[in-house]
Amino acid sequence: MGARLPVPPLAEWTRGYDRDTLSSDLIAAVIVTVMLIPQSLAYAALAGLPPQVGLYASIAPLLLYAALGSSRVLAVGPVAVVSLMTATAIGDLAQAGSPAYWTLAITLAFISGAILLLMGVLRLGFLTNFLSHPVISGFITASALLIAAGQLKVILGIKAEGHNFFELVLDLLRHASSTHALTAAIGLGTVAFLFWARRGVKPLLRRLGLGPRLSDGLARAAPVAGIAVTALLTWAAQWQDHGVRIVGTVPQGLPPFTLPSWDWSLWQQLAVPALLISVVGFVESVSVGQTLAAKRRQRIVPDRELVALGASNLGAALTGGFPVTGGFARSVVNFDAGAQTPAAGIFTAVGILLAALLLTPALYYVPQATLSATIVVAVLSLVDLSILHRTWTYSRSDFSAVVVTLLVTLAVGVEAGLVAGVALSLLLYLYKTSRPHIAEVGLVPGTEHFRNVLRHQVRISPCLVSLRVDESLYFANARVLEDEVNALVSSRPTLKHLVLQCSAINDIDASALESLEAIDQRLQDAGVRLHLSEIKGPVMDRLQGTDFLRHLSGKVYLSHYQAVSELAPGILDSSRRPARDDTGFEHNTSD
Amino acid sequence: MGARLPVPPLAEWTRGYDRDTLSSDLIAAVIVTVMLIPQSLAYAALAGLPPQVGLYASIAPLLLYAALGSSRVLAVGPVAVVSLMTATAIGDLAQAGSPAYWTLAITLAFISGAILLLMGVLRLGFLTNFLSHPVISGFITASALLIAAGQLKVILGIKAEGHNFFELVLDLLRHASSTHALTAAIGLGTVAFLFWARRGVKPLLRRLGLGPRLSDGLARAAPVAGIAVTALLTWAAQWQDHGVRIVGTVPQGLPPFTLPSWDWSLWQQLAVPALLISVVGFVESVSVGQTLAAKRRQRIVPDRELVALGASNLGAALTGGFPVTGGFARSVVNFDAGAQTPAAGIFTAVGILLAALLLTPALYYVPQATLSATIVVAVLSLVDLSILHRTWTYSRSDFSAVVVTLLVTLAVGVEAGLVAGVALSLLLYLYKTSRPHIAEVGLVPGTEHFRNVLRHQVRISPCLVSLRVDESLYFANARVLEDEVNALVSSRPTLKHLVLQCSAINDIDASALESLEAIDQRLQDAGVRLHLSEIKGPVMDRLQGTDFLRHLSGKVYLSHYQAVSELAPGILDSSRRPARDDTGFEHNTSD
Repeated sequence: MGARLPVPPLAEWTRGYDRDTLSSDLIAAVIVTVMLIPQSLAYAALAGLPPQVGLYASIAPLLLYAALGSSRVLAVGPVAVVSLMTATAIGDLAQAGSPAYWTLAITLAFISGAILLLMGVLRLGFLTNFLSHPVISGFITASALLIAAGQLKVILGIKAEGHNFFELVLDLLRHASSTHALTAAIGLGTVAFLFWARRGVKPLLRRLGLGPRLSDGLARAAPVAGIAVTALLTWAAQWQDHGVRIVGTVPQGLPPFTLPSWDWSLWQQLAVPALLISVVGFVESVSVGQTLAAKRRQRIVPDRELVALGASNLGAALTGGFPVTGGFARSVVNFDAGAQTPAAGIFTAVGILLAALLLTPALYYVPQATLSATIVVAVLSLVDLSILHRTWTYSRSDFSAVVVTLLVTLAVGVEAGLVAGVALSLLLYLYKTSRPHIAEVGLVPGTEHFRNVLRHQVRISPCLVSLRVDESLYFANARVLEDEVNALVSSRPTLKHLVLQCSAINDIDASALESLEAIDQRLQDAGVRLHLSEIKGPVMDRLQGTDFLRHLSGKVYLSHYQAVSELAPGILDSSRRPARDDTGFEHNTSD
Repeated sequence: MGARLPVPPLAEWTRGYDRDTLSSDLIAAVIVTVMLIPQSLAYAALAGLPPQVGLYASIAPLLLYAALGSSRVLAVGPVAVVSLMTATAIGDLAQAGSPAYWTLAITLAFISGAILLLMGVLRLGFLTNFLSHPVISGFITASALLIAAGQLKVILGIKAEGHNFFELVLDLLRHASSTHALTAAIGLGTVAFLFWARRGVKPLLRRLGLGPRLSDGLARAAPVAGIAVTALLTWAAQWQDHGVRIVGTVPQGLPPFTLPSWDWSLWQQLAVPALLISVVGFVESVSVGQTLAAKRRQRIVPDRELVALGASNLGAALTGGFPVTGGFARSVVNFDAGAQTPAAGIFTAVGILLAALLLTPALYYVPQATLSATIVVAVLSLVDLSILHRTWTYSRSDFSAVVVTLLVTLAVGVEAGLVAGVALSLLLYLYKTSRPHIAEVGLVPGTEHFRNVLRHQVRISPCLVSLRVDESLYFANARVLEDEVNALVSSRPTLKHLVLQCSAINDIDASALESLEAIDQRLQDAGVRLHLSEIKGPVMDRLQGTDFLRHLSGKVYLSHYQAVSELAPGILDSSRRPARDDTGFEHNTSD
């Protein structure tokens, strides 16, 4: 249903671009640029890369996404979870901060971009659907906790190590006494300021008489203010001589042209991490994009998103960047600030480019603890433990998927957590479908509708039993139906007809077909005829021409009501009943 | 449904055991014993073990299964496929025929027995349902071809090597010129005789005036006759001096008491092969048992079978044997020969015990080519290529499962083939469920039944659309429904109601629930109300109390007909229609 015509992305919005749209886009771009500068530096640090790399990764990707993407407001660049995954993927292969490490990050972005592009071209976007909401929630929450714990050591100015979250937290506690007081004051002060700024700045500015739009824009600049103030203080007091670690010299200039490593064994090593980064990045980006598009009745085309994100990552790799994706916070800010078209993204890219050209000397005195503070405040908003309670009350298997993803990510790492979560949720699904719900149904009086005899007051017949199997029949559950039918028939001596209501059977595979043949054979031996009703079109297409249907002892009915009217008219309402001697009776449930 | 009371196995049939049953069981036991002696020797050779080990593996397991199993006629012992898997599992760890190799086989039987026992106690029998019929068929056929190719080198008296079936066949062709003529004459002669004996002996004996039962029994002794004749000829002409390889000295006596190796690293190495042997053995055994039980209206209890086969393998390990399971051919012979109770198995065990005590010296001159000939004839009956054609016409995904299992087993090996087949069939199933069939349905005139508008002539309304999703809603397909509904709503400007007929939705997980909430939200924004009908009991139980149902814009109806009668009475037949102004129209399909 519903044709999807791909519209050339640029043609969609450049037509009819006017002065109003331009001014909206420009204002949004300024706000997002101000927000992105500290974020880009911070996420580069989180990934173990020099700060300017964060700026580089926010220029070409923004331009390429604007040209190719299907969302009008998505802002692409370094994000917290992907930066953490980058550090995990290459952390053991080179020294963080070294040129070799940078080349590894570039190679990772290149492979990840190639994977995304390939998935888009092959229309494999549906594969990411196998990442369930509970797994994503558990993964994002655990990653945020991991990131926050890792940044805490920078904020406190201590050295702590750990192969997982729990070891890291223990080591933080062990070294807590060696906290560097001045660094901690800067870091914790910035954290406190940023948390306060989230709620406190806007009302304060309104009370000072500023307009709502301006107040909002200034409130978003709080991280920039934090950076400016701590940098000024550090410069004034020369805190770097008192043990406060600062960003230091950041090269000034255009993003460099870079190429990935072509070492084949390295590519093999990075393939799995790159795949996981691609999938996580794509899922995060598409869900942000869809949420925002729905608010303005626009649409996201997942396969086009794959292509756009793939190009963005290839672009990042060629301009000295590292893996990027559509970020949640920056896209929401872009949307709220009034961005109308991808031109806002282009203007933002120009803003970041100007920063890379002109602003980097000003970053010399920025304390690293301030950058870490902006990361901690950003990622803690991703922690969502309410999913635990929600899934617990709704579905135990979703709950266990959340818990396993969360714990494995914290205890082992991001890659293991993701794989464990996906594997567990698939296994639980398969387990459920392997034990189908099978209900005996009866006629709801006064209707042509059949429902479970254990849940509804319905009419049944002693000579006919109606079974509804609530699952597609396939190899994993075919034998269960055999067992149930065997048990049923041996307990009903007066049985003459068994009608399978197939309304919930969406597929019958070859194994299940053999089981149905076996069931029919055994029922015939026991003097019972097997009938089928309400077989769906696609299932019937396949059954047509099989030996099973040719040798079936009973008939195939369009509706279950027709089957029962013909085989056991006694259970119909007296007004509808044809003259026959079969007597029905009311079945009253006890539970 | 249907309670399953576990009856103590022995009590089931020892009660009322009389003279007639005894004589039936005794006759069956004699026939099976005569058949098992050559088979046991041959399968031991196939597994790379000394011939007497085959006899040992046919005594304790038969007794233990008789005491614990739920089938009355299943005969447990060494079988072709499991013997091949044994050779594959331990072939690289020690020299075939050496004492160390034998200890490995014993350890494998022990681990496999422990796994089966554990699965039985934990009631994990359902896990084996994940092995689909197509995968089993492909696997058995490929294994039989592998075995036949391996035995051909013994029959031709040549040396051939190969890491897989294709290499082995190539090497056989390459060395064909070095065929040992006398060995080949014995081997191929026996093969020809056994193939002829299958069809030719019984009619011949009948024509000679023998009774049908006796003719049948004698026909089954053909392999024994082949062994006796070739052994006599070898003794008479001293063919072993002309390069014909013979069985040689076979130790005489009771099965020894043996223990597995307790080397933990060895157990880790053997765990996966042992698991695969357990699963394949169990599936083969249960399907034989079920087929035979159904013929006499008896039942097999899968979890009890696991315990009985587990005990049989532990018994084999403690008495010098190797992995065993219920065999197809011997069980059918036992059944056909009239075995009534497991006592036939006990008598067979006694028969084999006597053979181990008294008969082994007579085996000295048996040519190895004769044993290989009996194996080739036995396994070629397992080759079933018709499954390729049957699955091709019925279902492409079942077909690909067969082909992949077959080819990977031949090209890589038994373990890889099995794992690839199971993995592929599960992935194909998941893929299918991730792209659900979604049908727009309309009212079949004159009924209360709704069917696909593209397949049936049905009535629909311009203000209401009825969608039937033919799949449970879960994370892998939740987004597909969102996309379809979005596309549909944007193409129907007059739409006021969307009713989801949930008759084929057997589960809604947390991800799908979020999607339904998003759908309802978007429909509300577009001025369309979302209704649900025919939600099943188990699904409704979960939805009750969720925010989704509390905030749902529309209503939940018991039947789809009720929903449509209330929301768009115009499409009902005029006789049933209440007085309203909504007008329905006939929808006529074009395809």
